[in-house]
Amino acid sequence: MARFVVLNGPNLNLLGTREPAIYGGLSLEEYLPELRSAFPGHTIDQVQTNLEGELVEQLQAAEGTYDGVVLNAGGFTHSSVAIRDAIAAITVPVVEVHISNLLSRETFRHTSLLGGVCAGSLMGFGLDGYRMAIDHLIRRAARTP
Amino acid sequence: MARFVVLNGPNLNLLGTREPAIYGGLSLEEYLPELRSAFPGHTIDQVQTNLEGELVEQLQAAEGTYDGVVLNAGGFTHSSVAIRDAIAAITVPVVEVHISNLLSRETFRHTSLLGGVCAGSLMGFGLDGYRMAIDHLIRRAARTP
Amino acid sequence: MARFVVLNGPNLNLLGTREPAIYGGLSLEEYLPELRSAFPGHTIDQVQTNLEGELVEQLQAAEGTYDGVVLNAGGFTHSSVAIRDAIAAITVPVVEVHISNLLSRETFRHTSLLGGVCAGSLMGFGLDGYRMAIDHLIRRAARTP
Amino acid sequence: MARFVVLNGPNLNLLGTREPAIYGGLSLEEYLPELRSAFPGHTIDQVQTNLEGELVEQLQAAEGTYDGVVLNAGGFTHSSVAIRDAIAAITVPVVEVHISNLLSRETFRHTSLLGGVCAGSLMGFGLDGYRMAIDHLIRRAARTP
Amino acid sequence: MARFVVLNGPNLNLLGTREPAIYGGLSLEEYLPELRSAFPGHTIDQVQTNLEGELVEQLQAAEGTYDGVVLNAGGFTHSSVAIRDAIAAITVPVVEVHISNLLSRETFRHTSLLGGVCAGSLMGFGLDGYRMAIDHLIRRAARTP
Amino acid sequence: MARFVVLNGPNLNLLGTREPAIYGGLSLEEYLPELRSAFPGHTIDQVQTNLEGELVEQLQAAEGTYDGVVLNAGGFTHSSVAIRDAIAAITVPVVEVHISNLLSRETFRHTSLLGGVCAGSLMGFGLDGYRMAIDHLIRRAARTP
Amino acid sequence: MARFVVLNGPNLNLLGTREPAIYGGLSLEEYLPELRSAFPGHTIDQVQTNLEGELVEQLQAAEGTYDGVVLNAGGFTHSSVAIRDAIAAITVPVVEVHISNLLSRETFRHTSLLGGVCAGSLMGFGLDGYRMAIDHLIRRAARTP
Amino acid sequence: MARFVVLNGPNLNLLGTREPAIYGGLSLEEYLPELRSAFPGHTIDQVQTNLEGELVEQLQAAEGTYDGVVLNAGGFTHSSVAIRDAIAAITVPVVEVHISNLLSRETFRHTSLLGGVCAGSLMGFGLDGYRMAIDHLIRRAARTP
Amino acid sequence: MARFVVLNGPNLNLLGTREPAIYGGLSLEEYLPELRSAFPGHTIDQVQTNLEGELVEQLQAAEGTYDGVVLNAGGFTHSSVAIRDAIAAITVPVVEVHISNLLSRETFRHTSLLGGVCAGSLMGFGLDGYRMAIDHLIRRAARTP
Amino acid sequence: MARFVVLNGPNLNLLGTREPAIYGGLSLEEYLPELRSAFPGHTIDQVQTNLEGELVEQLQAAEGTYDGVVLNAGGFTHSSVAIRDAIAAITVPVVEVHISNLLSRETFRHTSLLGGVCAGSLMGFGLDGYRMAIDHLIRRAARTP
Amino acid sequence: MARFVVLNGPNLNLLGTREPAIYGGLSLEEYLPELRSAFPGHTIDQVQTNLEGELVEQLQAAEGTYDGVVLNAGGFTHSSVAIRDAIAAITVPVVEVHISNLLSRETFRHTSLLGGVCAGSLMGFGLDGYRMAIDHLIRRAARTP
Amino acid sequence: MARFVVLNGPNLNLLGTREPAIYGGLSLEEYLPELRSAFPGHTIDQVQTNLEGELVEQLQAAEGTYDGVVLNAGGFTHSSVAIRDAIAAITVPVVEVHISNLLSRETFRHTSLLGGVCAGSLMGFGLDGYRMAIDHLIRRAARTP
Repeated sequence: MARFVVLNGPNLNLLGTREPAIYGGLSLEEYLPELRSAFPGHTIDQVQTNLEGELVEQLQAAEGTYDGVVLNAGGFTHSSVAIRDAIAAITVPVVEVHISNLLSRETFRHTSLLGGVCAGSLMGFGLDGYRMAIDHLIRRAARTP
Repeated sequence: MARFVVLNGPNLNLLGTREPAIYGGLSLEEYLPELRSAFPGHTIDQVQTNLEGELVEQLQAAEGTYDGVVLNAGGFTHSSVAIRDAIAAITVPVVEVHISNLLSRETFRHTSLLGGVCAGSLMGFGLDGYRMAIDHLIRRAARTP
Repeated sequence: MARFVVLNGPNLNLLGTREPAIYGGLSLEEYLPELRSAFPGHTIDQVQTNLEGELVEQLQAAEGTYDGVVLNAGGFTHSSVAIRDAIAAITVPVVEVHISNLLSRETFRHTSLLGGVCAGSLMGFGLDGYRMAIDHLIRRAARTP
Repeated sequence: MARFVVLNGPNLNLLGTREPAIYGGLSLEEYLPELRSAFPGHTIDQVQTNLEGELVEQLQAAEGTYDGVVLNAGGFTHSSVAIRDAIAAITVPVVEVHISNLLSRETFRHTSLLGGVCAGSLMGFGLDGYRMAIDHLIRRAARTP
Repeated sequence: MARFVVLNGPNLNLLGTREPAIYGGLSLEEYLPELRSAFPGHTIDQVQTNLEGELVEQLQAAEGTYDGVVLNAGGFTHSSVAIRDAIAAITVPVVEVHISNLLSRETFRHTSLLGGVCAGSLMGFGLDGYRMAIDHLIRRAARTP
Repeated sequence: MARFVVLNGPNLNLLGTREPAIYGGLSLEEYLPELRSAFPGHTIDQVQTNLEGELVEQLQAAEGTYDGVVLNAGGFTHSSVAIRDAIAAITVPVVEVHISNLLSRETFRHTSLLGGVCAGSLMGFGLDGYRMAIDHLIRRAARTP
Repeated sequence: MARFVVLNGPNLNLLGTREPAIYGGLSLEEYLPELRSAFPGHTIDQVQTNLEGELVEQLQAAEGTYDGVVLNAGGFTHSSVAIRDAIAAITVPVVEVHISNLLSRETFRHTSLLGGVCAGSLMGFGLDGYRMAIDHLIRRAARTP
Repeated sequence: MARFVVLNGPNLNLLGTREPAIYGGLSLEEYLPELRSAFPGHTIDQVQTNLEGELVEQLQAAEGTYDGVVLNAGGFTHSSVAIRDAIAAITVPVVEVHISNLLSRETFRHTSLLGGVCAGSLMGFGLDGYRMAIDHLIRRAARTP
Repeated sequence: MARFVVLNGPNLNLLGTREPAIYGGLSLEEYLPELRSAFPGHTIDQVQTNLEGELVEQLQAAEGTYDGVVLNAGGFTHSSVAIRDAIAAITVPVVEVHISNLLSRETFRHTSLLGGVCAGSLMGFGLDGYRMAIDHLIRRAARTP
Repeated sequence: MARFVVLNGPNLNLLGTREPAIYGGLSLEEYLPELRSAFPGHTIDQVQTNLEGELVEQLQAAEGTYDGVVLNAGGFTHSSVAIRDAIAAITVPVVEVHISNLLSRETFRHTSLLGGVCAGSLMGFGLDGYRMAIDHLIRRAARTP
Repeated sequence: MARFVVLNGPNLNLLGTREPAIYGGLSLEEYLPELRSAFPGHTIDQVQTNLEGELVEQLQAAEGTYDGVVLNAGGFTHSSVAIRDAIAAITVPVVEVHISNLLSRETFRHTSLLGGVCAGSLMGFGLDGYRMAIDHLIRRAARTP
Repeated sequence: MARFVVLNGPNLNLLGTREPAIYGGLSLEEYLPELRSAFPGHTIDQVQTNLEGELVEQLQAAEGTYDGVVLNAGGFTHSSVAIRDAIAAITVPVVEVHISNLLSRETFRHTSLLGGVCAGSLMGFGLDGYRMAIDHLIRRAARTP
């Protein structure tokens, strides 16, 4: 049985109400039970914060606590060296998730400073991306004795 | 009677003492009563914060509370996708204000990530820019039944 | 009592008929009386021209004649060093106005060669931007004995 | 029961022998049975080609034949407008997969011309990325009656 | 006798455990006594924070309290206009320190938004950089009556 | 029977004498009768001007007067936002014509600010390009009742 | 009587079904008889291929066989040095045709590597562009004894 | 005895009053007699215009009328393809003159679109640059029989 | 005795007739016997193809068959990640050859995506470059037991 | 009576034999007497060196020895910060001269690192540029008591 | 007891007279005794040269002779690959020193080609930077047995 | 019997000791006899210098003395216009040689300012590159009577 944390960055607390054409109509609160039920026997915590520094601290705290991190850093994805450094500083695998397809949006969303130090990166799958990330982390953990 | 909030970002708490050649010699505390007296009957709140994440949260909180936001995001203007996303996520009109003329300063101040999702943008008018922004928001509110 | 001139550049004679989704449905002829009535006792002249060189000459001629200039240079905003030089050559304050939000349109509209030598710059407020500019110039004139 | 095709581009026929530190030691022939066994009852075809034009044709042929495409376009990812146009021309959902983490490799691998018109994009999960893609496509098909 | 503060930005709380090949194996807690013992009679405070806004506030608070600031802004070095503005807003000399040699790492670490408004800048000397910075600040203070 | 206007920009009055290796040896005066004789029953007016603003005005005036415009904006092609805005402001179809092959000349001639808002664009066909443009406009007019 | 070949590149076999808002609703099979009937007495062959290399070979084979080539290289327009070299290597005139207006689409479609070595280039006229190209080639052939 | 024309572009009618620290305190009217007296027996005409198109026309008109042109195109120097084309279209030698040192001013003044087709180019010598240009043109004329 | 293959990319089948000022007047058929006679006792095969994908396959097939590859990828040199990946995937040494001096031609020919993974790279020596490449490969083979 | 030194940089010792189409057929030895005879009563020394560092030293040595320097830095013009610093470090006026028109040659010759700190800059006048430079320096010296 | 050499590049022989606002009023001759007295028992040699190649040679000669090098390469800092290669070729630690704050000066001074291969880099501390560099080198030598 | 000179630029005197993983373990002194023995009857001189200006002079001196030059300009390859100009000024063929594969090293080594004016260019063959260059020059000389 493994433990995971889903870290959501700025504005993801608005899921379900914010630009539903892009992000869907389901709130985090409505989605989380669905996500947990897909992985019975595993623990899935969730933290949402609008503060870059708190994402840094949550990543640091994941070391030794969780078996994997699912990170949707929102708008910090494109400019935060601090979050990149935190990911590189820990050994817990971090999977980068984006709900929307960043490559079909504004140019400044086309690059990720974080992806290069993550265990994997996915985008455009809607909320299902969170499930895919945890599904992968469980298999990965199974491979690593 | 309408309600507005003026959101001031990093270092704007130093108004009056910081680089007065650029920002003028009046502090926020001295200026706010002057601003309010220009719009009798309206409520004008003010929040200053040096935290990017708190600007995100104040913008989110403005939805349903205020009829308009006046935003001087200071140094976050040029790089914060998180604040841009917050502005785009709410329906309250946001007017971007800069005290100094950014185009006559360093190159990295010449672009605004925020302006493109604001209801309007102004710069270089000194503290009078805050008054102009609220003046416009009141007329705009009058036009929108 | 002060005197102002509103200088409108290329295609602004089409206001009201040209791309009304962007520029609104009011013509210059319909809007000017409204603008003047907002500032009783002041003189507000208006010149529209499609010629870059005539904007240069109008700016030169404003020196000694007007207390302030409101300039919407239209398409010349992004490439005219000549107009920039004319603004820098005179001491009358010039306020740059754009009806639409340039930052939400094509990339080549995101930079202004003129803003850096203006007394202030605003955009995205629709026709109300003209009023805001004159309103500021009157207060500015009052401050400068 | 749904039908999928995995399209593999240039050099992916070398899987298992080519740069195993990056791509792993399993060949396509060894991996495909494992992939199919993860989705009993579904059909998973596979085509590998080193020709850009054949990828274009396989994508065109997928229309009306398959319920989803998993595409690893290899080196064509970064420059092929032709493949992008083929993806945009069909209505079958295409998921972009990369075995390695492109963002931790050479700069010319950091951009994808294809991702912006795909139903989703993932990279860095090793061969497990193929399984994740099909897993998502099945759920997506279930949602779309 | 002078007072100094060492401001450490994001992830520097991990010193000693994080990427020791780059940052060395000594923690901040182990290093600070060594640093202080090099300057008997002087006060050396230290603050570590992962929040950009708190660095802004610490810099503001240094004015009138300390005779010099040693700043290692970590990942904020490359993008924070807010921190740059705070340094420019105060008169206390700020020395920029980086433990590693930024010019031998990723391209996005090659530029510093902060250095241009600092009293001096050094990098690549490992932890000894902190001592060099304070050593300089003491001599500088001695020169300025 | 339809009416068209050919608008020629700066230096096109020199046709026949200016750099004949690039532009050919026929003057506008010699070519126009030939052009008109190719379309008996149709009216083809021609205006040449070296003034950017006059091109703007001719484009505006074409609305309601002509069934199509053939525009060779010469050197203004690469930098005139004003002409682009005029084309976008009218509903008459405008076809962009260049006598020489711009892509085989200096780099600054490789981009057109105008083409994106034209009904079509052609270059490199010598004077025959004017005939091709009108030929297309006549067929287009026939399609649009 | 002259002989021409129309070379169509990737995805043009989908004409009529692919993105009809951009490319129109007529298939190549429906359009070709119409094109041929416009030029009685002339031979107009057509080849469509999704392979860059086959376009190279068709261009080489046109030498000595045809009096002119009409080339719509589709997605290869923007990156194929090989096709450019083939055009430059033959003496048959090649006219570049694009159905849509590339300058009003994505940025990567704004440049053509091929245009600079073609006898002429046109875009945005829909299927009529093919007719215009052949019409020009016939007149050109008439001029060259 | 030779004939020359000095063509002055936008804002040069303000010489003597405009930014005297950059352009000096002498007006054109005061300087021209001084310039003429330096070349007795030669004719030196002068035209100042703020219109780009009129500079184009003056350059065209110089052909066959003057033995040399001295051109200070002011702000048009950096962007006018039309003026460049006019210079290239005539055979009269044109010398480019700038009063100030463009390379020590704003970046957008560092490039000249015109210099590459001129007979020579000079800048930074103040008003003496006009004399140097005519001096050279006279010697050049003497060399060319 | 060693075995080598010369792989020639697009348009190199035209050697001797195509732009002889750049590529010389000798055809591949005429040159190959001369090349082989320079290395008696060694086998030198040659393959020319206009298909990017076939170059990929020939490179893959060279593994285990040849002691060295001489590759002139023609126009694919500047953009083909697929060919680069094939070179990196095999252990046979590949020498990059270009007949002409790419650095004295168009800018887009100045960069090679392939050179960085080749055993060596040469250009500008005309057809002699093929001989030099094989000469080196033979010595290299002699050094590697 | 004033003293001047002409400093010629790399390859200018080849004047008269090197690329005469660009630099003319006169050697330095042949030209210098002609130059001196144009300024009777003044001293004109000349130094040619191919060493960047020697140009630096000659510039330093000019201080207190000469009334003006004429500098043709040749290929060092485009990259030498050291020579720029030497010019800025001395008070003797330095005039930059180039024999050819740099703006009509390769792109890397279009920028000068030196011009921005010179008293003036001229190019394209052939050898006459040296005379023009000294002529100006004499008048300049006359103006400065 | 250790041996060090301070290598000063172009124009540093002018220290004390050259732009004292930037570089201070002390000459090298006045400063060196002060520097040496700060490190009794150690040998500190100094070489100043305006020749890039001599810096290369001094760096090569430092190997086996000195325990550390302090390098102020002046204007060569921004463009000299030769000096960078020399630093990389030797094992003696080299510390890069700049007297002024390069990041607050012209853009071309913002990058250092040398820093990435140095043992450390500092700037903006005035002449004290030399002392800081040697101080560090002594401690570094003490750490390395 | 022909005469050649091998010109080696900065740091090549360190061959055999400098970064042997990149440049090999053989010194110039050890390699030269081997090189000469490969071409009995021919004269092969060698000059190594760390001075850019001396390379310029050696190239000038080669004219009339040698039948070919082999040039390894080391770090000057990427920035020296002076050396480029010297190569262009002489008629002796110059072959550019680099021991290492520049395209697999730092980005600033990927461009050569010199290659475009050389008779040919090769890199990555280790010391064998020198032999290949002379081998080619001998054959070239044989072809040119």
